[in-house]
Amino acid sequence: MAYKELCAPKRTIMTPGPVEADPRVLRALSTPILGQFDPAFTEMMNETMDMLRGVFQTSNKWAFPIDGTSRSGLEAVLSSVIEKGDKVLIPIYGRFGYLLTEICERYGADIHIMECEWGDVFNPEDVIEQIKQVQPKIVAMVHGETSTGAIQPLKEIGHACRALDALFIVDAVATIGGTEVLTDEWCLDAVIGGTQKCLSVPSGMAPITFNDRVEAVINSRKKVEKGIATESDHAYERKHSPISSNYFDISQLMDYWSPRRLNHHTEATTMLYALREGVRLVLEEGLENRFKRHRLHEEALIAGIKAMGLELFVEGEKKLPVVTCIKVPEGIDADSVRSLMLSEFGVEIASSFGPLQGKIWRIGSMGYSCQKKNVLFVLAAFEAALIYHGAAIKAGDAIQTVLSFYKREG
Amino acid sequence: MAYKELCAPKRTIMTPGPVEADPRVLRALSTPILGQFDPAFTEMMNETMDMLRGVFQTSNKWAFPIDGTSRSGLEAVLSSVIEKGDKVLIPIYGRFGYLLTEICERYGADIHIMECEWGDVFNPEDVIEQIKQVQPKIVAMVHGETSTGAIQPLKEIGHACRALDALFIVDAVATIGGTEVLTDEWCLDAVIGGTQKCLSVPSGMAPITFNDRVEAVINSRKKVEKGIATESDHAYERKHSPISSNYFDISQLMDYWSPRRLNHHTEATTMLYALREGVRLVLEEGLENRFKRHRLHEEALIAGIKAMGLELFVEGEKKLPVVTCIKVPEGIDADSVRSLMLSEFGVEIASSFGPLQGKIWRIGSMGYSCQKKNVLFVLAAFEAALIYHGAAIKAGDAIQTVLSFYKREG
Repeated sequence: MAYKELCAPKRTIMTPGPVEADPRVLRALSTPILGQFDPAFTEMMNETMDMLRGVFQTSNKWAFPIDGTSRSGLEAVLSSVIEKGDKVLIPIYGRFGYLLTEICERYGADIHIMECEWGDVFNPEDVIEQIKQVQPKIVAMVHGETSTGAIQPLKEIGHACRALDALFIVDAVATIGGTEVLTDEWCLDAVIGGTQKCLSVPSGMAPITFNDRVEAVINSRKKVEKGIATESDHAYERKHSPISSNYFDISQLMDYWSPRRLNHHTEATTMLYALREGVRLVLEEGLENRFKRHRLHEEALIAGIKAMGLELFVEGEKKLPVVTCIKVPEGIDADSVRSLMLSEFGVEIASSFGPLQGKIWRIGSMGYSCQKKNVLFVLAAFEAALIYHGAAIKAGDAIQTVLSFYKREG
Repeated sequence: MAYKELCAPKRTIMTPGPVEADPRVLRALSTPILGQFDPAFTEMMNETMDMLRGVFQTSNKWAFPIDGTSRSGLEAVLSSVIEKGDKVLIPIYGRFGYLLTEICERYGADIHIMECEWGDVFNPEDVIEQIKQVQPKIVAMVHGETSTGAIQPLKEIGHACRALDALFIVDAVATIGGTEVLTDEWCLDAVIGGTQKCLSVPSGMAPITFNDRVEAVINSRKKVEKGIATESDHAYERKHSPISSNYFDISQLMDYWSPRRLNHHTEATTMLYALREGVRLVLEEGLENRFKRHRLHEEALIAGIKAMGLELFVEGEKKLPVVTCIKVPEGIDADSVRSLMLSEFGVEIASSFGPLQGKIWRIGSMGYSCQKKNVLFVLAAFEAALIYHGAAIKAGDAIQTVLSFYKREG
């Protein structure tokens, strides 16, 4: 049981997450620990909240991370809002839509789903029609579906939810920091982001934001822990059922992330350092510049893929700009191609789930991984692995096409 | 909104957690990201499981971290085991006993509590008597209660639980890696550890272990996510109610931490690096040496406190070796003393919760923070702050006493 010091091999990570962390985020991670109530630390918490508002493009009071991976953010928001029997409408267009049903089901929601083919997205009008019929308390939806590489337009659905008094809860894990997420302008009531994708921070925190409509629902279910409650907490009369999870109880987390600083858990110090640095770098680059950079390298990647004669699984407006899905050519073992890329080139791309397993490859171009060198390297390794596996690819065209593209476009 | 690069002040952290991370753990944190299914990463997952078995002193198959802070580990185990109406007996001797009731209540347990004065612990015979009367499915208990600085003997209760067929679930967040936790020998069915205390890893993960008795209960509630289920998963017939949380569903986490590697969440890469390095250093030092080191510095700290003429809140066998609680002398503002120590000396100690707030100070001597330099520095700052606040302390005695102690004892 005598293991050696940690030593990770060098990788080029072009999956839809986790992706490479920015070197400045990696450096921030090794900052020594501060106590969770140290004024130097609570100031960092406040700064992070402030910067998260910028990233979510919102004036919401509440924007802070849940201490867990992305799906902990989904579960925190959903479990804090959903009471047993609440109607929830979930339009599903890939794996992560099912995850929403999975979570809502466990919290006793009365779930209504709509489904469309994996790779497609919904016509907003169809969703709005369904909202009118079902009259849900909550509409929960994925913004960018990494399992298929598709992106759902949210603006019209958001406005309809507001008009019809439904809460609109959005999984923006894959899109935040990589493409527009206009929380306020699109009338998103709660948004859950991910760290390990376009923010280029390691997995382990889930930044969320929510508005006063959501806050009101959550506060109606508030309960303070017995071990730390004061008289006024005991006097508080609750009209709704308490939140089923203690860890994900956002009514308690608000007391922790506000001047009251009522102890809930011990904040994950190091991950907060990383998130603070990650969102700082996003705002330093500027959201517009950052989205533009993501579109540029997506275009380069697509040009290279097409030059190889391969087909995209999703194209055009419904394509998620930060994930590119490629159909596996007839007779090619998709997993064997990926394995060769990883073992020989140290380049990682992804397969998909359920009905798409073995049918498509997924290449992410997210955050720090979304850069020229990585695009060129993933294409070179991909081309070599395909030729090695006997695919009818003309050697060299992809890279030459992309080199010319970058020469022309920047 | 233009914030500067992260810059944390230098602190000496002598609270009952979070404490200073080992510099080698801090260095491991800045290791570049690996994909969660990269063989180099899954090997690190396996190594971490193997080393965790060593730290928990168990031959259990299952020993892995939950991706959240310590209480996420408590909630994962309790929510995966407790079905609505299950009888749970919780003997409470401080704040974290109430936390167990808090979590169990939310999952619909039929809770039976026993309470003793904060600062005291239970006579095992009394707990065993209560187990016989209540006949609970589960007994849940805290091993080291950081809110009061007391430690509960568990061996007899564990053996009684086994004989009476109750599952014994233990919160060892404060004790793991700092004092003996004999999972197998004491018949603990599930144990939850903490990272940010005696392991000297940042907060944000919760290592757990559980045996086949617990595994059987959890597997009887198993459910595979719809988006990734295969035919054989659908055919599986569940006889018990499904687990209420998706994030904390240990039946799914076992599929993730075993060769099946079925995707649940994206593993918190960087925190896993830190945990792997942290447990590696624990085993490199050796558990016996590590416990001895914790006892040595505890003794030094106590000698210094007593030389100042201050009184301990808990003494003798029931004292938690890694937390020392001190009664606040009449007329002294406890929080003002702490503030001065932090702002002028950069030394952090803690207050307590609920009935003990303002009544005691708590000084931790845990993990990397548990070393001679820190003990001397916390005593020097504490003495100075007390004198500054008008306490009747003879200057210099504490430090001279402790210097002699170290000269004599090592």
